[in-house]
Amino acid sequence: MKKLIYLDYASTTPQSNESVAAMQQYFKDDFYNPSALYLAAKNVSKNLENLRASVAGILQVRPIEVFFGAGSTEANNIIIQGIMNLYIECNMIASAIEHDSVLNIAKKYNSKLVGVNDAGIIDVLELVKIINDKTVLISCMSANNEIGTVQPVSDIARLINKIKKERLQKGNTTPLFLHVDASQSFNYLPLLPHALGIDFAVVGGSKIYGPKQTSVFFIKNGIKLEPLIIGGGQEKGVRSGTENVAGIAGLVAAIKQTDDMRIAESERLLQLRNILVEGLKKIDPSCVINGSLKNRLPNNVHVTFNNIDNETLVMQLDENGIMVATGSACNASSDAPSHVLSAIGLSGKQAQSSIRITTGRSTTKSDITVLLDSLVKFLIR
Amino acid sequence: MKKLIYLDYASTTPQSNESVAAMQQYFKDDFYNPSALYLAAKNVSKNLENLRASVAGILQVRPIEVFFGAGSTEANNIIIQGIMNLYIECNMIASAIEHDSVLNIAKKYNSKLVGVNDAGIIDVLELVKIINDKTVLISCMSANNEIGTVQPVSDIARLINKIKKERLQKGNTTPLFLHVDASQSFNYLPLLPHALGIDFAVVGGSKIYGPKQTSVFFIKNGIKLEPLIIGGGQEKGVRSGTENVAGIAGLVAAIKQTDDMRIAESERLLQLRNILVEGLKKIDPSCVINGSLKNRLPNNVHVTFNNIDNETLVMQLDENGIMVATGSACNASSDAPSHVLSAIGLSGKQAQSSIRITTGRSTTKSDITVLLDSLVKFLIR
Repeated sequence: MKKLIYLDYASTTPQSNESVAAMQQYFKDDFYNPSALYLAAKNVSKNLENLRASVAGILQVRPIEVFFGAGSTEANNIIIQGIMNLYIECNMIASAIEHDSVLNIAKKYNSKLVGVNDAGIIDVLELVKIINDKTVLISCMSANNEIGTVQPVSDIARLINKIKKERLQKGNTTPLFLHVDASQSFNYLPLLPHALGIDFAVVGGSKIYGPKQTSVFFIKNGIKLEPLIIGGGQEKGVRSGTENVAGIAGLVAAIKQTDDMRIAESERLLQLRNILVEGLKKIDPSCVINGSLKNRLPNNVHVTFNNIDNETLVMQLDENGIMVATGSACNASSDAPSHVLSAIGLSGKQAQSSIRITTGRSTTKSDITVLLDSLVKFLIR
Repeated sequence: MKKLIYLDYASTTPQSNESVAAMQQYFKDDFYNPSALYLAAKNVSKNLENLRASVAGILQVRPIEVFFGAGSTEANNIIIQGIMNLYIECNMIASAIEHDSVLNIAKKYNSKLVGVNDAGIIDVLELVKIINDKTVLISCMSANNEIGTVQPVSDIARLINKIKKERLQKGNTTPLFLHVDASQSFNYLPLLPHALGIDFAVVGGSKIYGPKQTSVFFIKNGIKLEPLIIGGGQEKGVRSGTENVAGIAGLVAAIKQTDDMRIAESERLLQLRNILVEGLKKIDPSCVINGSLKNRLPNNVHVTFNNIDNETLVMQLDENGIMVATGSACNASSDAPSHVLSAIGLSGKQAQSSIRITTGRSTTKSDITVLLDSLVKFLIR
């Protein structure tokens, strides 16, 4: 059988051996409910708090600022709805290229979108203009899931700090929070919420070689949310439900490993990306790499060819054992045009001529060669 | 090392070998995002729909009525908030002995509680009285998690049908739905939503030897909910987020196994329960078994002794390798008095003299003997 070449790591990642191994003890052995009174259960509870503390160490935050949930979509909902339901007369701003799990929540509330420039980077000057006295939340992903562009989160945090000081002087008591979905970036960019000056951050297991429907999220100490998932009060009332300790152990193993591999893996994938981009330009000199190449995750290439049908191309590559994406796979109704590509000014036709290639831990130089050879075949015909 | 005797199966269950085995293929091999376009991902999507269809077969419902989520607490939230946020000017009724994941949600809305009799069974006559023209949802668990009493769900469904006909005649267009949390009962009672006449049902993996933070829920075809967890539109928009296919496979394996073992295991545990209750009466003739013995899950004994301290007893048993509960472990703040025991008329002192013993697949006759011998030691002193 031909080797399969997976180049859709932005869509989801296989679980690492380390992550799978970390889960095992909690399936049948240490399966106890952490809220129970006997020693075996208290030990599970202690393990859970140790897992929380090790994430806190990596994020350089306090353990009470670390929460576990069931996936990044759920975490984005818990945070955004948790704030907006408390400040229902206020408004929020999201970047126009946020993930659906942010954009579709924003639609529930009084919300505005801030545009991005042609390079797929948020326009901070436009953001300044649309923030008003009633803005309580700004949601900006750390890096985009389709085009991989890295967003100026710390610039936005500084802007927010300035506005908060102005509000204080004016006697405006409306808080202003910054929420960052770091699910796509965590493999390649460290996440240090306090240093960045953000209030909420989300990382999902499914993008960092951890278990699916697991997530860790940061809530800056002292911020209150209206709970979305109500019940027994687990996770300090922010996400009720008997804890998925196996999933949490798998997630934390993945976080540790990701943190350890980050620098080396970023450098390795950047070299592969350079080879890929160079190869693409050779095959089709008119092709366009969408989004900034400078402010970009090292594993992402999003390319528009000259008038091709991307679904056909994805299928042709698939028949040759190569898996790439036409866009985000996170949207279950994949027929809709990509809001990200529209935001950077691509026409519908250009969007349909584009594919996303995202590399990861298993990707080798030879995979890139095979991909380029296949593209030659399908694009030249 | 002494054999540990786990008698807290109502709190949570170990995952079965079959359930753990069913997950493995999805961790590193078939890890693909079911929404992606290539064949490997489409196969995962097909597997997911096959898993949905096999649950539908067991519940005797249509596959489009079956949804997967992250735990029974989450599912209860999705359903109850999903209805009540659509009918915000209406009211709901919950039984006074519901799980916190129902009671604490009900508090958000215009809601009333229906009491239970001394035997821990919902008072249907009282329910008739408190349903009014604006009641849109009734939530009644299939069996209670603390005292194991089985609730008259089909009586309530019949009552609801009668009221719906009356509403039709009066021109009242407010719907009236019945939600059943079947998490505790599914091991012992079949769940056939259409035959029972219910609109929503929930089963969580953590109580049926499946993975934690997994759940399957039934929504009767045609009923619309306001989505609680918003995003990419997975699970027909009812629960967005990249699907946890490993968890779903583990859950469905657990559901199948539970369904296969239900009758034999119910009979076996009923015999053990009879031995246990007889033994308890011998040790302490004044002890009281709380809740109906007739309408009760076969694995539950909830007993009040004469003036003991249940936390001390639980610890003494724990030191002897026997794990039982003082009450529900699902409430993370376990210091609160049990609302279930209050509802059946126990005083605070009686509640503090009570323990819950819940058996399961690993429980043997010898375990019951060891428990009784230990209780003799600690209760007689």
